[in-house]
Amino acid sequence: MTSRAKKYTLDDMDTFLKNVIDTALKSAKNAMERNEIPVAAVIFSPESEKIIAIASNRTEQDHDPTAHAEILAVRSASALLRQTRLTDYDMYVTLEPCPMCATAISFARLRRLYFGAYDVKGGGVDHGCRVYRNQTNLYTPEVYGGIAQTRCEELLSSFFKTLRGNDR
Amino acid sequence: MTSRAKKYTLDDMDTFLKNVIDTALKSAKNAMERNEIPVAAVIFSPESEKIIAIASNRTEQDHDPTAHAEILAVRSASALLRQTRLTDYDMYVTLEPCPMCATAISFARLRRLYFGAYDVKGGGVDHGCRVYRNQTNLYTPEVYGGIAQTRCEELLSSFFKTLRGNDR
Repeated sequence: MTSRAKKYTLDDMDTFLKNVIDTALKSAKNAMERNEIPVAAVIFSPESEKIIAIASNRTEQDHDPTAHAEILAVRSASALLRQTRLTDYDMYVTLEPCPMCATAISFARLRRLYFGAYDVKGGGVDHGCRVYRNQTNLYTPEVYGGIAQTRCEELLSSFFKTLRGNDR
Repeated sequence: MTSRAKKYTLDDMDTFLKNVIDTALKSAKNAMERNEIPVAAVIFSPESEKIIAIASNRTEQDHDPTAHAEILAVRSASALLRQTRLTDYDMYVTLEPCPMCATAISFARLRRLYFGAYDVKGGGVDHGCRVYRNQTNLYTPEVYGGIAQTRCEELLSSFFKTLRGNDR
């Protein structure tokens, strides 16, 4: 059990995880086209190599401050499986989860959490209140940060660059 | 701006807040009848003295680990108002919010958070990772803990007593 993020490059991954990352990045780009912060989450079964949920941010579109990609993906997978615990499943998300999402991932008992870009300002796994390092936290997934980090960061940067451009 | 919970008794409150608390406790009892942990949240306007959202736990019923009362109340109020920020509204919840819900309340920019029972094991406001005390936390509501504490605690105790009874 660790919440220390490990560094991996895409070359370390197998084809399946590469596909998961590509799916998440495609979904995050879709969010950007809807003027949402481009973050997406995918929940998948490492055993069957099947994706069971894909979601991207919908906070603006849905007028819902809780509609982060991770929350939507957990809700979608739980509804599909009709169970609150996703013990046999992993999540890949393009950005380090915030404290809300990190806690939801713990409640959902997801086996592993892979994330892309680190979030110094808003993250809750390796930054901020570091949810999983707290004594009262009941369950910690295995955490692997910095997965396809550059591609995830570039997408976020291009979104915020466009935002700043529009502000002028 | 403070996250230090202040102690209030029901006698300090005006009739409106008493009604809000009664509404929340009634909703929490309803959750208990559905075999959910009896926690409920109410979002109200201190200006118009109107309740705009009432929700209680639905994690088991909805197979949704994120379906805590506070999350459901925020989603309901935001959808109603078609806005992600609930700046002019307050929340009353019968139990100290967990880190997931405390963060959601911050995202929703709720003006005040009143809560009933303290949650030493699962709370994220005055216990655990104390979301609002973290440097990276962007917005902190005014927090008042221990409001109608005894009634909220008694409801929770009776639920867990029944659970233990059923386990025998």
